[in-house]
Formats: sequence, structure tokens, C-alpha cells
Amino acid sequence: MDAAARIEAELHAAIDRAGGADCPPRLAEALAYAVFPGGARVRPQLLIAVAGACGDPSPELTDAAGAALELLHCASLVHDDLPAFDDAAKRRGKPSVHAVFGEPLAILTGDALIVLAFETVARAGARTPAPLPALVSLIAGSVGAPGGIAAGQAWESEPKVRVSSYHRAKTGALFVGATMAGAIVAGQDPRRWRRLGEKIGEAYQVADDLLDAAGLGDDAGKGLGRDAQLGRPNCVSELGVPGAIERLKGLVGQAVDAIPDVPGSEALREIVCAQAHRLVPKNLVVAAE
Amino acid sequence: MDAAARIEAELHAAIDRAGGADCPPRLAEALAYAVFPGGARVRPQLLIAVAGACGDPSPELTDAAGAALELLHCASLVHDDLPAFDDAAKRRGKPSVHAVFGEPLAILTGDALIVLAFETVARAGARTPAPLPALVSLIAGSVGAPGGIAAGQAWESEPKVRVSSYHRAKTGALFVGATMAGAIVAGQDPRRWRRLGEKIGEAYQVADDLLDAAGLGDDAGKGLGRDAQLGRPNCVSELGVPGAIERLKGLVGQAVDAIPDVPGSEALREIVCAQAHRLVPKNLVVAAE
Repeated sequence: MDAAARIEAELHAAIDRAGGADCPPRLAEALAYAVFPGGARVRPQLLIAVAGACGDPSPELTDAAGAALELLHCASLVHDDLPAFDDAAKRRGKPSVHAVFGEPLAILTGDALIVLAFETVARAGARTPAPLPALVSLIAGSVGAPGGIAAGQAWESEPKVRVSSYHRAKTGALFVGATMAGAIVAGQDPRRWRRLGEKIGEAYQVADDLLDAAGLGDDAGKGLGRDAQLGRPNCVSELGVPGAIERLKGLVGQAVDAIPDVPGSEALREIVCAQAHRLVPKNLVVAAE
Repeated sequence: MDAAARIEAELHAAIDRAGGADCPPRLAEALAYAVFPGGARVRPQLLIAVAGACGDPSPELTDAAGAALELLHCASLVHDDLPAFDDAAKRRGKPSVHAVFGEPLAILTGDALIVLAFETVARAGARTPAPLPALVSLIAGSVGAPGGIAAGQAWESEPKVRVSSYHRAKTGALFVGATMAGAIVAGQDPRRWRRLGEKIGEAYQVADDLLDAAGLGDDAGKGLGRDAQLGRPNCVSELGVPGAIERLKGLVGQAVDAIPDVPGSEALREIVCAQAHRLVPKNLVVAAE
């Protein structure tokens, strides 16, 4: 199975478990709706690519960790779209979870997805529990407080935003989680893989700003220029479109340079470059050239 | 240290970690506000009592598992109080989290507490990871879907409520989680401890209905008779106050009988009876006698 198939299979298994047996039917429906069909599954793709570069000795745990990151990402999207935050009517081109299932079920869907992520990793560790403490702690750190996604989102409720902390937590943390978790499931020292995740996270943030400026991509349904509307720091408004594209290219170069020397480094470099190429919206490249 | 001191120490350590370093200051404040001062910490007390009856061989893991249950309980209270659910202005006699910090931070506080619970268990398992797969899966099952707290709450969004599933998930699951997790951290077969948790959970649900009828207790601030107001199934409205008190006594008896034969059974029986005695609001006892 290729990485994409592994990710979808693991996500389907997790959502089937959560929505099975005694689950309230509408919650089961909302859980599946929040996860399928997905976006590019960038975070689990990255995790599997890093684990693969290191030999991927425990594919079962790799897939579970990848699925966990995606479930947590989906949970954050469901909660971010709520009226209390972005009040987004659409997500990935279809109505957002709260628009379809109502606010109470959207809150509970996010909660249940967070829980499901940890359950997914724990059950996959049944035969090899040794990596679980580091793996669960790392994943938790990527999504909770003080420095994960929830903390990142919380900066928007502060009277004074620390911009670097905000970006690092809101977008960067889960990419760092992906590279470091990929190393942990492969029995490698995760610290060597932090910088790769950081640089990809920064690149993705710039790409997100470009997509937002172009009114395209994952968050397109949220409506044009919402960052500007909410007064959030945005790379495009600081550097302009050509400047932001240059910045993105520089970050991808730094990411590639940050890949540690392992048997699969070369293949991983190619994956990172190929993914990066897809990050820049084509209409903006044309406009900038 | 007695159980209460162990629980508070572990909770303080967890909240300090989550609110440390780079945490947005208001989120850090909200996390502590949601957890301190606490209620009776019934679930971790029960977990520690069960582990203690089994010899408590890994107190570090016991305390972490207990704190995790309490963090998850607090998370569920914060989310339950949101305008989308109970819209409760008060909790434990003080303004609810969203009343003080606003809805966005209340949602994120709940999310971060869920994540913190799993982080707390995982880090405590660093030296003894073997119980983690079962322990994390069990805790996840108590709070997520298909049968945990989130699923229980989700029944309120269904056009047709399955009442037994609703109660089992919303209140029972975390008590079953407490007894079974107490067994797991002590290296015992958790299945033998399920019935004790179920019976205590049912007793607690009846007690909660009594408290609600009396306008007292943990949820008093939510206002009188909210169950009736929302049309939720309620033992007092079905059996009357004296009938509900009889039911409660019967359930406590069944709980005591369900305690498996372990070295500390006798001490555990006393703890369960003492806790149960505190469950019945005194004004109702007087009124019923």
C-alpha cells in the first residue's frame, strides 16, 4: 500500500471504531463527515515519509501515529470553524460540521476526535509499548498547551499576540510533531528531526497565506481574505505575493537541508520538494512571474 | 500523603506544565480556573481506592491516571456549560469558564484539558510503559465515542434518546473508567472491576438527580431543576424523592457486593460506604424520613 492508502485505511478503521456499537447515530455521522473526504493529509504523509526514510520498522505504529495527527488536525478544523472562532459556513468545499450538525455536535465531534487520536496510538502500541510515552507526549505537545494548536488558537484571544509563538503553535507544532513522531516510531532520536518540521511548518504557513490571498485551497470555503479581515499577521500582506513566494522557496530549501543523514534521505528530499511544489497556487505563480 | 493530597499535587503539576513557558497567559489562567478549586474529586478518589485495595504497586502511574480522569471530567464540565449546551453561568459556585474568559477560550480550555489528560498518563508511564496501551484505551473509551462522556452528551442532540445508553455514557463511563483504570495500574484484570464502577455510576446519577431536585451540590450553580427544564430523564421525577433515596441505597449495596476479593477489599468497602453516605443531600433525607 502507498502512504495515501495506508492513511485512509487507518482513518477508516478509527472512525468505524468510534462510530460503532452504541454511538449516537448523528455523532457517528458527524465524525465521518469531519474526516472524509480529506484534504492532502499532509501531516500523516510527512510522518510516514520520515518513518520510511528511517526504515519504518513498525508500520502499524507509524500508520496509527499518522492517523492520530490527521484526526487532531480535523478536530482543530471543526472547532476553528465554530461561530465562536471563524464562524465558517464551509470547509473543504462543503458545509462545515456545525452548519450541518449544529453547534453542540460540532463541539462534541472535535472532542471525540481528539480522544480517538490518542486511543488510536495507544492501541497500536499494544505489542510495542516502549515508544508510547515519548510518542503520546510529543503528540500531546503538538496540540495542547503550552505550545500546541489549542494554544496557538488561544493567542487570538489575547490582548497582545506574540506573533512568533502564535505561528509556531498554531501551524508549526503539528508539522514538528509529524517529523519527530516519524522518528520516534522508527526508533530514531526525534530531536534531529525538529528543524525539518519547523521549516515545513513555516513554509506551510506562508503557503496558507498565499492560498488565502488567492481565495483557493483547503480553507477556500472560509471566504476570501479572512486573515486580513481578522487582522491576523499575514506574510502576503507584509511581503506581497512575489516576496511571499520567494520566502516559501527559501524555507523549502532550508527544510531540505535540515533532513538528517539516514538511509532514505535522498528519497525524503524528493518527497519534500514534490510536496512543496504543490503548495504554491498556480494562478499566483503566473501573476508573480 | 493521603489520596486527596496526591490528587491535588498531580493536578497542580499537570496544570503548571500546560500553563508554563510559552502558553498564552489567559489560556493558562483559564486552565487553572477550570480545575481549581475542585469538587470532591470523586473519580480519582475511586481510582486510587481501587489501586490501593490491590496494593498500589505503581503510585506514580496511579496518581497520573487519577489526575487524567479529573482533567477529563473538568473538560467535560467546561464544555457542558457552554451556551451551545447548558448555557450555565455558574459552576461549583463561581462563574463558569466561558462566563469569565469568553466562549473561544472555554472551548480551547476543554480541548487542552483533554490533551493534558493523555499527556499526564503517558509521561507517568515512561518507566513502566507496559500498562499504557490498555490504560490509555480504557480512559479514551470512557470519554470519547462510541460510549464515553462525549457520546453521552451527544445523545441530547439525537431526535430519539436511548436512555440507558445516555446514562451509561454520560455519567457511568467515567466511573467504570475509574475502577477499571485503578485495576490496570495495579496490574489486575480490569474486567473484574467493571461492575463496581457501573453501580457507583448509577448511584451517582441518582444522587445527581437528587441534588438537582434539591438545588444543591456540584451543579447547584446551574440553577434549580434544569433536568426537568430540558426534559431529560430523571430518577426523582420517576420515583419521587423517597423512592430515589431507596434506589440509591440499593445501588450502593450492589456496588459493595461487586467489590472483588483482594487484600484491601474490606477497606475499600468502607470507603465506598463513606462516600455514598455523603451523596444524599441532608435536607432531602430529613424531608423523606
